[in-house]
Amino acid sequence: MTEKEWIHFLKKYLFEEFPVLKSKNEDCAVIKLSEKEYLLLTTDALVEDIHFSWEYTSFYDLGVKLATSNLSDLAATGGSPDFALLTLGSSKPLEKFWLESFMEGLISTLEKYGAKLIGGDTVKSPVFFVNLVLIGKTENPILRKGAQVGDYVFVSRPLGESAAFLKEIKRTPLEKIPEHLKRAHLHPEPEIQLGITLSYYNLATSMIDISDGLLLDLWRICEENEVGAELWKERIPIGLNATLEEALSGGEDYALLFTVKEENLEKLEKIAQKLNRTFFMIGKIIHEKELYLSEKNLKRKIYPLGFNHFQ
Amino acid sequence: MTEKEWIHFLKKYLFEEFPVLKSKNEDCAVIKLSEKEYLLLTTDALVEDIHFSWEYTSFYDLGVKLATSNLSDLAATGGSPDFALLTLGSSKPLEKFWLESFMEGLISTLEKYGAKLIGGDTVKSPVFFVNLVLIGKTENPILRKGAQVGDYVFVSRPLGESAAFLKEIKRTPLEKIPEHLKRAHLHPEPEIQLGITLSYYNLATSMIDISDGLLLDLWRICEENEVGAELWKERIPIGLNATLEEALSGGEDYALLFTVKEENLEKLEKIAQKLNRTFFMIGKIIHEKELYLSEKNLKRKIYPLGFNHFQ
Repeated sequence: MTEKEWIHFLKKYLFEEFPVLKSKNEDCAVIKLSEKEYLLLTTDALVEDIHFSWEYTSFYDLGVKLATSNLSDLAATGGSPDFALLTLGSSKPLEKFWLESFMEGLISTLEKYGAKLIGGDTVKSPVFFVNLVLIGKTENPILRKGAQVGDYVFVSRPLGESAAFLKEIKRTPLEKIPEHLKRAHLHPEPEIQLGITLSYYNLATSMIDISDGLLLDLWRICEENEVGAELWKERIPIGLNATLEEALSGGEDYALLFTVKEENLEKLEKIAQKLNRTFFMIGKIIHEKELYLSEKNLKRKIYPLGFNHFQ
Repeated sequence: MTEKEWIHFLKKYLFEEFPVLKSKNEDCAVIKLSEKEYLLLTTDALVEDIHFSWEYTSFYDLGVKLATSNLSDLAATGGSPDFALLTLGSSKPLEKFWLESFMEGLISTLEKYGAKLIGGDTVKSPVFFVNLVLIGKTENPILRKGAQVGDYVFVSRPLGESAAFLKEIKRTPLEKIPEHLKRAHLHPEPEIQLGITLSYYNLATSMIDISDGLLLDLWRICEENEVGAELWKERIPIGLNATLEEALSGGEDYALLFTVKEENLEKLEKIAQKLNRTFFMIGKIIHEKELYLSEKNLKRKIYPLGFNHFQ
């Protein structure tokens, strides 16, 4: 079963009526509690040798990564994180020396964004894994659904450094890799503040966090809205030491990708100044259900890697 | 690190202030939303060959078991289940034939108790596991904390059949095992209705679901309240084909254990009649921090199996 088939399969079983917002493709489950209060619920697991490698991931890093991947899902919905539950799966007895580093990474990252750990459990497992459940809230959830033809596509920061780290680590010892690449992969920042701000000012018509690569995550937005997108090659912000390829298809950037109506571009510019940030306008939503990468007069069709739909 | 050390260790990192009710030892995390509204949050993972065996567990059974173990945690807090999120970890591609059975078991069990699946995700994992997140609510959470000296100890149904199944399956083919033993282990019922009723009438001073055996779970109540308990051997309801040993120490019964003040015994009796149920009064909370099993004039100290504290 491909990812697309799985989503289609799952849809049959999902409850998608009030007070639950259509959730099959969202980063979080969104539940309406009252007129101006939505509960957000997300969970994400990291499995050893699948989602991380002990070769270059410390226990501290793992804690950071677990918190970040969950926080980023909440950020993509415009949410403020509140509470988290931890599950540890391990075949070996828990040892204080590594648990302390792991918890430090986890808790410091959660607390930085206002989230509190309120429960934890361990299960025996032949493979080591960590799982987090995160709940939060928002007055105005931003969904993947909402982008319209003519909206501009933005990303919140340069892309590809996380993927560049993964390339470097194959040929360079960890201690010789530039600090900013290590940070990009091991301690990326979830865009909680930005998500909250875009939600507050109602500036984004749709939003997603870039966890599987710009093209793939942009295509998810396109599919959800039955539209396509044109990207302007020269506008795509490429991280230091990263390539265009890594910026387009590298994963785990945890930047936000969002779409904005033309009439709101000025407001967005003011917000950017206020937050002392630069947002990168990289393209436009189009009617034709395709992705294009354009450069001067050249416009070519592109396909997100790793997405079964295109095979 | 023993379980006790883990709980002690974790406590340092947990947030336990308003609006979160002290949660380190509870079945659910309990968050106060308003004067009469508490959000309940729980998560539970089942890992192949650890929490279940393919030898006698069908995919349908696994779906039932995943729903039940989470629902039972909610029942133990007096909650009504609302929404669930599923995570599947698998090394192999998902196949429709087993996914459909699994989802049928999961969804039918969730729906029976009013819970709705609102999201699902898959991750690659060298070992097969399933994880559920469940949220619910209650006006009046029943915690492990609350039992007082003199309170009577009740269990909601006969115990030990789930453990008796595990003994039988070692020497008897599945199809020859009595139906009620199969049901007890493979399709146990979470006591959602009872939990809600006890919460509504405020009849239980403390409550827990029996997932790790009567003695061990009773001892958890005792530890939380710095008390002990005396059990009356002849009053302990032993399931059909089960032994006293299995009733005392077998796991996965998913019955509720709760404590009731003497002044409320009559009310409880009325509730039992109304629900057409029998509740089993099996002992009493005592001041001395020990467990006793008494029979006529004999009273001997007993120790819950598998709990490090006693080693």
